Amino acid sequence: MSIILRNQLEEHTSLSNEEFDYIMSHFEAKKLKKHQFLVQENENVEKNYFVISGCLKAYHVDSNGKEHILQFAIQNWWITDFQAFFNRSKATLFVDCIEQSEVLGLSFDNAEKLCAEMHKMEQFFRKKSNSGYVALQQRILSMLNNNPQERYDKLVLQNPILFQKVPKKLIASYLGVSRETLSRFSKISKL
Amino acid sequence: MSIILRNQLEEHTSLSNEEFDYIMSHFEAKKLKKHQFLVQENENVEKNYFVISGCLKAYHVDSNGKEHILQFAIQNWWITDFQAFFNRSKATLFVDCIEQSEVLGLSFDNAEKLCAEMHKMEQFFRKKSNSGYVALQQRILSMLNNNPQERYDKLVLQNPILFQKVPKKLIASYLGVSRETLSRFSKISKL
Repeated sequence: MSIILRNQLEEHTSLSNEEFDYIMSHFEAKKLKKHQFLVQENENVEKNYFVISGCLKAYHVDSNGKEHILQFAIQNWWITDFQAFFNRSKATLFVDCIEQSEVLGLSFDNAEKLCAEMHKMEQFFRKKSNSGYVALQQRILSMLNNNPQERYDKLVLQNPILFQKVPKKLIASYLGVSRETLSRFSKISKL
Repeated sequence: MSIILRNQLEEHTSLSNEEFDYIMSHFEAKKLKKHQFLVQENENVEKNYFVISGCLKAYHVDSNGKEHILQFAIQNWWITDFQAFFNRSKATLFVDCIEQSEVLGLSFDNAEKLCAEMHKMEQFFRKKSNSGYVALQQRILSMLNNNPQERYDKLVLQNPILFQKVPKKLIASYLGVSRETLSRFSKISKL
């Protein structure tokens, strides 16, 4: 299963088998059941998780108990409460499994160690962070610029696999629309 | 004026005078008039800009000619069309000056050169990108979770200086609310 991580690393840099084995020795594999939690609000966030299989979600629960989905993650994506992870603060999000999942966890200390020891890992994480930054800017622009129907069509186009894995009510929460509005879109969408 | 950049770099790493002079030799200073453009839609985006003084905005113009503000930048912030800059693609945004400004421009090639030559610069840009990523996640959560009044109050609290520099109609565009709604908030806000 580590080949999935290796492929992602090698999109940005080349690695010898020894280097990859060394990198892998800093990760911890974890199998999770559906609904199992990886991160819980008010707890420490020790790890960033690379997804090997399955599907997870990161979300905030507001004072009325309503869930707001910040992020989904499927194979090849990274997920955690990034604010808490990077700032070494308590979680304000929950991360749990939409379906049975396998992840590779990398602790904050091990991430910093790998970046300090291997310049190419520092470069890898810089490039990943830049890509993530751009993706979030595009999501904000879409929230400012597009109506809910257009946001739905864009998400279908960019991540069709999410629609096979994620219940409609969670997609609605991610898009910031009601479940009823989303049902209307999914019937009339031409995509 | 380069001391402002040095201070930001030294929040993350220590630098000798020689190292800082070498880094600075990769930047180009630019003075801009009010309304002058740094980035224009459909053009190449050669540089990322560190702001020494003044105030700038990055925005998208939709098919109806309406501006959607993605980002402001004041002293100590970085601004460009990051999607176009990182992906070496044409701009989809405009960046221009809300007031007379001074910036230090760093080209894509010079940024990559500095990161390759100096591990500590690679680390600096990784950490900056991580912080930017977290700030955008918080903005998305606020857009999903908070009503416009709460988003306005949060922005006042986090960036009071913006309200001295930026016209109300631009703040309204950034928050995704109408100018009239914003005026109502600014009268009743307790902050």
